[in-house]
Parts: sequence; C-alpha cells; structure tokens
Amino acid sequence: MPITGENLIGGKAVRGVNGEARAFDPATGTTLEPAFGGATEADLEQACALAEAAFDDYRNRPLEERAAFLEAIADNIMALGDELIERCVAESGLPRGRIEGERGRTVGQLRFFADIVRKKTFLRTVKDAADETRKPARKPELRAHMIGLGPVAVFSASNFPLAFSIAGGDTASALAAGCPVITKAHSAHLGTSELVGRAVQKAVADKGMPAGTFALLFDTGRKIGQGLVADARIKAVGFTGSRGGGTALMKIAQDRPVPIPVYAEMSSINPVLLMPGALAERGEAIATAFAQSVTLGSGQFCTNPGLILAVEGPEVTAFEKAAAAALGGIAAQTMLTPGIHKAFADGVSSLAGNAAVSELGRGQPGQGCQGQPALFAVSGADFTADPSLHDEVFGAASLVVRCKDETELREILEGIEGQLTIALHIAQSDGERVKALLPLLERKAGRLLVNGFGTGVEVSPAMVHGGPFPSTSDGRSTSVGGMAIDRFLRPVSYQDFPEELLPVDLRGL
Amino acid sequence: MPITGENLIGGKAVRGVNGEARAFDPATGTTLEPAFGGATEADLEQACALAEAAFDDYRNRPLEERAAFLEAIADNIMALGDELIERCVAESGLPRGRIEGERGRTVGQLRFFADIVRKKTFLRTVKDAADETRKPARKPELRAHMIGLGPVAVFSASNFPLAFSIAGGDTASALAAGCPVITKAHSAHLGTSELVGRAVQKAVADKGMPAGTFALLFDTGRKIGQGLVADARIKAVGFTGSRGGGTALMKIAQDRPVPIPVYAEMSSINPVLLMPGALAERGEAIATAFAQSVTLGSGQFCTNPGLILAVEGPEVTAFEKAAAAALGGIAAQTMLTPGIHKAFADGVSSLAGNAAVSELGRGQPGQGCQGQPALFAVSGADFTADPSLHDEVFGAASLVVRCKDETELREILEGIEGQLTIALHIAQSDGERVKALLPLLERKAGRLLVNGFGTGVEVSPAMVHGGPFPSTSDGRSTSVGGMAIDRFLRPVSYQDFPEELLPVDLRGL
Repeated sequence: MPITGENLIGGKAVRGVNGEARAFDPATGTTLEPAFGGATEADLEQACALAEAAFDDYRNRPLEERAAFLEAIADNIMALGDELIERCVAESGLPRGRIEGERGRTVGQLRFFADIVRKKTFLRTVKDAADETRKPARKPELRAHMIGLGPVAVFSASNFPLAFSIAGGDTASALAAGCPVITKAHSAHLGTSELVGRAVQKAVADKGMPAGTFALLFDTGRKIGQGLVADARIKAVGFTGSRGGGTALMKIAQDRPVPIPVYAEMSSINPVLLMPGALAERGEAIATAFAQSVTLGSGQFCTNPGLILAVEGPEVTAFEKAAAAALGGIAAQTMLTPGIHKAFADGVSSLAGNAAVSELGRGQPGQGCQGQPALFAVSGADFTADPSLHDEVFGAASLVVRCKDETELREILEGIEGQLTIALHIAQSDGERVKALLPLLERKAGRLLVNGFGTGVEVSPAMVHGGPFPSTSDGRSTSVGGMAIDRFLRPVSYQDFPEELLPVDLRGL
Repeated sequence: MPITGENLIGGKAVRGVNGEARAFDPATGTTLEPAFGGATEADLEQACALAEAAFDDYRNRPLEERAAFLEAIADNIMALGDELIERCVAESGLPRGRIEGERGRTVGQLRFFADIVRKKTFLRTVKDAADETRKPARKPELRAHMIGLGPVAVFSASNFPLAFSIAGGDTASALAAGCPVITKAHSAHLGTSELVGRAVQKAVADKGMPAGTFALLFDTGRKIGQGLVADARIKAVGFTGSRGGGTALMKIAQDRPVPIPVYAEMSSINPVLLMPGALAERGEAIATAFAQSVTLGSGQFCTNPGLILAVEGPEVTAFEKAAAAALGGIAAQTMLTPGIHKAFADGVSSLAGNAAVSELGRGQPGQGCQGQPALFAVSGADFTADPSLHDEVFGAASLVVRCKDETELREILEGIEGQLTIALHIAQSDGERVKALLPLLERKAGRLLVNGFGTGVEVSPAMVHGGPFPSTSDGRSTSVGGMAIDRFLRPVSYQDFPEELLPVDLRGL
C-alpha cells in the first residue's frame, strides 16, 4: 500500500492543500517522503459533519457488529505487515523489536475492547420495577444504561506511534463506546498514521459502518487541531502529550458554549520510594533494575521513573553508586524527534548546572538524536526549595532525593503533584512504614506498585493509567485498560417505556 | 433545639462575624429570627483544614460504620420532629404536606446510600491475576477499586430545602463515597439548614467520625462560597441552582492550579412532545395532567414542563383550550423567595409582551409572593427565531410551540439545549414516529419518559437526574439516584501488593 500523504475522510483519501509536512528519521537524520498535505478548514468541516451524521447509526448497530469492527481494525493492522513496521521504525527511531511489541499491544488492545463490547457490562443496564400500588403516587418503571457521548477527537502521542496513536487506546475505547472518532496525526509519525488510518478506514468499509465513523487529519500547524476541539459536534477529546498541549486543549474545551470533557494524559515524574529494609536487603539489585527501567525506550515513557525518594544513609549511597555504575554501561538510544532530544538535553543541562544538584553518573554518550542517560541527586531541602526540580524531564534522566528523615520524606510526598504511578521498593521489615504512607500515596497517584517500576502498563481490566492533575486532566479516568471506555459514556434513563420502544439492551430485563 | 445562627465547624458551633442574615417567610412577608452570622475567611480555613485532616480517617473506616453514620443522619433528622417541619414551611412557603414528603425523601435518600455503601458494588473491585510464565515479561497482578476524591463542597438549592440541601443528595452521595463535606447554606432557608446541619453534626459525634467529616457555613455574600470552590483542599463541588451561579463556580474550579469537577444542576425547560395519536385519543386528559404537573410546587421544579411541542392541528387547539381551562382553576401558590417570584413575574411579563407569543390562559391571580400560573403559545418559526424563548422561566409557566410539520418539530428538537428530561405522550399509532425521534432525544436529555411528566424524580438505582449542558455542567453524571455516588470517586490500581498492604476490600479476591 503506497503512502500518499492524504487525509482520510468519510471513506475517501483527500489531498490536503493547507501546507505540507514530511516525516523525519531521527536515527539517520533524513527526511522521509512523501509530502503530507495539511487538512484545510473545509476538510475539518467535512470530517465533523460526517462524524455527526454517523453517530446515531454507528452507536445503534448491534454490539456484535461493533466488536467485529474493532477486530477487523486489528486484522487490517496486522495485514500491513512489514511495511508498517519499517515505516514506524524509521519515523520513531525505536528498535524493530519494540515496534513489533507495540503493534502486538495495539491489536491486542483493539481485541480487548471487542471483548468488552461483547460482555456488555460497560452498558451498566439497570431496572427499577414499577409499583402501581405505592401511595401517594405510583412508582414508575425506570431502566437505564450508558450511551456514547458523541464524536470524539483523538490526538496522537509522540512516544507510542501505534499504541497511543491513530488506532490506540483512545480510539479503541471511544469506538467501543459507540463514538465516531476523528484523529489528528502526530507530526513525528505521519506515514505510520496514514497506514494505520487506512487500516481503520478499510475496516469501516469492510464492515459496512457509516463512512463518518472514522477520519484522519494531518495538521501542518495548530489551527485544525484547535478547531477540532472547538467544533460543536465534537463531544469529548482524548490526548496524550505535554502539559502545555493538554492544558491548551482543556482551555479551548471549557470556553466552548457547550463545554466538553478533555482526557489529557500529560506530565508525571513517577516517584520511586526506596524503603530502608529493601535497600539493606537488595539495594544493588534494585539499582540495576532501575537503570534498565529508566532507559527503556530512551526513557520516553509517561511512567518513566523520574524521581527516587529515600531517607539518606549508607544504603542510599550504595544504591546511588550501583545505579550510576549500571547506567554507565547503557548505550544512548535514539530519541523520537530532534525537538524531544533537544528538550531532554536542555533538561539534563539544567540539572547538571544546578548548584544544589550533584551528578551521580551518565550512560554512554550518543550522537545526533541519541539521548545520553543521566542520574542526579539532591537533598530533600533543596528539592523542596526549587520547584523546577519537580518538572518532568522527558527521557532517560532521574533525580535521587536524599531525605534527611521520614518526616521530610512525607513532606516531600505531600508537596508533589499528581502522578500516574508511585513505586515502592520494600522488604518485610518496611511494612508498618509503608502502611502509614499508603493513604497519602493513594491520593497522589492512580497506580501504586510494589517492588517494580511503572514502565510496563498492562492493557487489562484493573489497570489505571491516569491520576490526579497534572498527570491527567481528569483524575477520575484512565486512558489504558477496561475502565477507559467509561470516559466516553453517559447515562440515559427511560421511564415507563413500552418494550418495543426501548433500546435493545434494555428489553427483557 | 434552639436555632442559634451559628456556623457548624468541626463539632463546634461557631458564631460568624462576617455580617448577618435573616430568613424570610414568603407567605407572610415577615423576617424570621434569629440573625445568622456570616462565616469569615478564618472559618472557611478552619473548615477546609478539618475536612482535609478527616479525609483519610473517614474514608478508611469500615463500610458498615459509614453506612450506620448515614442512617444516623436520617434518624437525627426525623428526631427534629415538628420543629424542622415548621421552620421549613415558614422559610419556603411550601405546604406542610410537601415538606413532610420531602423530609421522607431526604431520609430515604440517606438510607438508600447506606444500602449502596453496604452492597459495595460502587467500589468496582477488580483483579487481574499474575502470569509468572508470560513472555517476554511476566504479567503482574493488578487489583483496582474506587476511592473518594477528597473533601467536597456542597451548595444548597433554593427549591428543595431538605432533599437538595444540607443533607440532600449531593451530601449523601459524597459522604457515601467516603468524602468529607462542607456545605454552604442557601440564604432562603437558613434555619432549616442549621437544624439539619446539627442533625448531621450530632451523627458525626454519635458515630465517632472525625470532626472534619462535616461542616456548615453561612455566607452573607459570595466570597465564602467562591473561596470554598477555590480552596486547594476541596476536590469536587455539588451545586443545584441557576445557570449563572453554576457556570460561575465552573469557572472558578477550572481556573485553579489544580482544576476540579463541578457537578452543577442548572437549567432545563424539559420539553413535552405531544404525538398526534395521543392527542387524538386523550388530548383533554393530557391537558389536565399537564396543568397539575406545571403548577406542582408553584412550578419550582428543575423538571418542570416548560415547553410543549406538537404539530399544529385541531387536536393541538383542543389541547390548548383544555390546558388553559384546567389552569384557570388552579390557585396561585407562594413562591420560595421574593427574588424568585420577581424573576418569574418578569419572565411571564416578557412572554406576554412578546408580539409573536399568544397567551392561552392563566391560573388564579395571587398576592405577594404567589406565582400566577401562565400558559403561552408560539409558532415553530417564531420560537426558532427568538432565542429568548428557549430560556427557562423558573415557576409555573409553559410555552406551547405549534410546529407546522414533523420536519419543523425535528429541527426544533435539534436546536434545543441539553435537558434533564423529555416527556413523550404517545399512542400505539405513534410508534414509528417516536422510533425515528428517539436517537435524537437520547442525545438531548438524561431521562426520557412516556405518558407522564418529569416532575417526579425517584431516588432509585436507574434514575438519571442530569443531562447534557446546560441542564448539568457535566452530562456524564446524575445528582439523584444510585449513580450519583460515582461523581465523587476515582480509580486506584495496586500492582503486586502483598495481601496485608492492600486496602481491606481488595483482600481475598
């Protein structure tokens, strides 16, 4: 399948005439063909009109058809074969094995939501029986279920060109909820986006879904993306990216005549707590595992461990040495884009140049877009005093905060912003200390984990990949796992409806 | 129990020194003693600090204790006896029977949420088993459940001094979710608020809950209420009232460094569709039932039927005549406050003075704060042309829109804002017409009902009392019924936790 650089709107490929953009291979520093035509306001209008027209039809198709549609997307993505893998490797600089794994995750996620659609529990159907004899007034019959919110705008992430992109978790869960989706491609992986978009578009056609069920737009600036969020026909937004980008979309969504929810997964430094018992028992092993986790995918994970917290002492010093040593043997890896690489390098320089911060070690130096891993340390007091140290450095960098005692450790935890994850490294002897911290940790993060790192994010019913602001715009939600579908649903109640007028899933209760 | 006019903060009664306010009896036009002292910023600070301090303790009490606490509130409200009923009648101008019924609804609602707490399904506990043999990486164990968001601010409504007030649905569902509550009393029923507040405060003490679990503040201006929403320790807001009030709170909540959800139930005109079959079969009976519904509680219901839609014809004319005749026999009833009465009178005058609007009839004239029911009619084209006709007139007024055909009826429905309810009056012969409209109606309202009016709102699992903006700020939510608890919850996931460190409800899964 040739990559043409066209927007995909309503079953058609439409050449955008609003400027051009090309993809870039960060590993080789070369620009990739073809040119992608930016969507115009007319293209946006067309995509929104079609999504609006598709909504009632799409959401009222039998759930089995909806599930089969999601599976067809998965099948079509797999059918793209090596062409997808090669283009995605070229556009992301990520290794082939990682991209193959991410493709597996992406199609698995689509099938996971197909299963959720078939199980129907997301509909939350409920019935209250009538009571004709109740005084002073009869009790009516009520039945309720969840329906889709309406057309959803999905903004692709830079760091997961498949799993958080055109047919990623936001798209899969919105389609599963019965919502048409209009995606905005990320500039870092234009060709990957088109290939996957064509796989979705083909599934729409193959399964006879309304043409407006899916669209893919390329935006050569910001106007089309902003216009998408502002459009009255769009009823929710999914986004994974920077805090600046996410909060800008939140503002547009709130300023509409009819505000809509924005589910933006943004900024998280994912604290790791090293408890004394664990450090004494196996500090070196934790250090080695940490070095692997912080450098995974060149550190470009939302759940990358960017902050290590421990009460100072010889075991912490030993951990720092072991971590620095382990890091020293790790090669620099290509980062996703020159812009991301530059922001990482700037963040590391800023830490290195901070008088309160000491450098513990670096990984192997790199060239071009490769990010050299880096580990720093700071005292608890200095960390508290300098808000810039709380900011995410996106990439393979982390900061050890040496707390002077448990009181300071708790104060620092109280002062941090909302997080996607908090990891705890513990031994049996740390039990009571951990118990005392847990209520606070629950308030700070969406996922707590023991003796591991948060970089792996399962697609499963109990996963929460969301947390208090600013890790996500809406801490009541997750962008990964079974509960992600709930973001795109709202309840509707039917009172005293004759059976034949009820929605299918509410009949026969 | 004497009414003292004090704020209730942390188990104590605290005299506010930020100005004074007194309640007013709209039926007699007399001011009621005592004077209520307005809360100061120090009082607000104290209430927020205590709520914050109470949160972890309160939410981690055994669920049975939480349920018993909700029941104790209900018992304590009943124990207030006639004093509460009399004060509430005096402050609201509502008849004694209505207030007794509303008290029953309020205590029933608290017991309903106690049952929900005991059933535990709101926790949505879920477990993914580990798979140690999975390649390339082991699958971790994950367990997830819902926890409370944190302290919640609740703003009382004018129109339900008990059921949507200090111990109303917002408070009951937030406490059930494990969230401390700080309530702001409505100026229309200060004494009722104090009495109920003392009943809650006594339940906190009797059941040994942390003192900051509940507070009641009187605000002589707007600063304390606004400051409450802006306070970093508040994590969600419940509100029932005007569109202006609700959107002002939304703005404050969104402009915080950490934005929080506002659940504001605001403005709804609750369209009623009269289908041709139903009109032909029983137009007069519908007219009589409509006249009863629109005047219930002087029309001061969020679900009051403010808009009647039908395709013009002799049956509609007959309906209009019958409705006007039925209305003509209905007495004016006292409205809640002079301000609400004035706004109603202004709204009716504006309709009466609109050249495109014809007056169909009025109820009996009233005096003082009594609202005279009124019914008007307008053509579909004129309704569409004049946005002011789409606004809610809070009180016993309604507008018949005579559509020239089914196409115009559909266009008008497409143009209306989000609603709490849409009622359909239908006969067997209307089935196909209704089926064609239902997808549109589902998108416009949270509750659809057949052959009835929305004024009765059951407290039950399948109730949805919420709808697309502006009927509520967040159309994904309901402020009445079992799903109301979901507003104050967020998911947390626990990965590879040893059993003894897991929250109690996640053990043994």
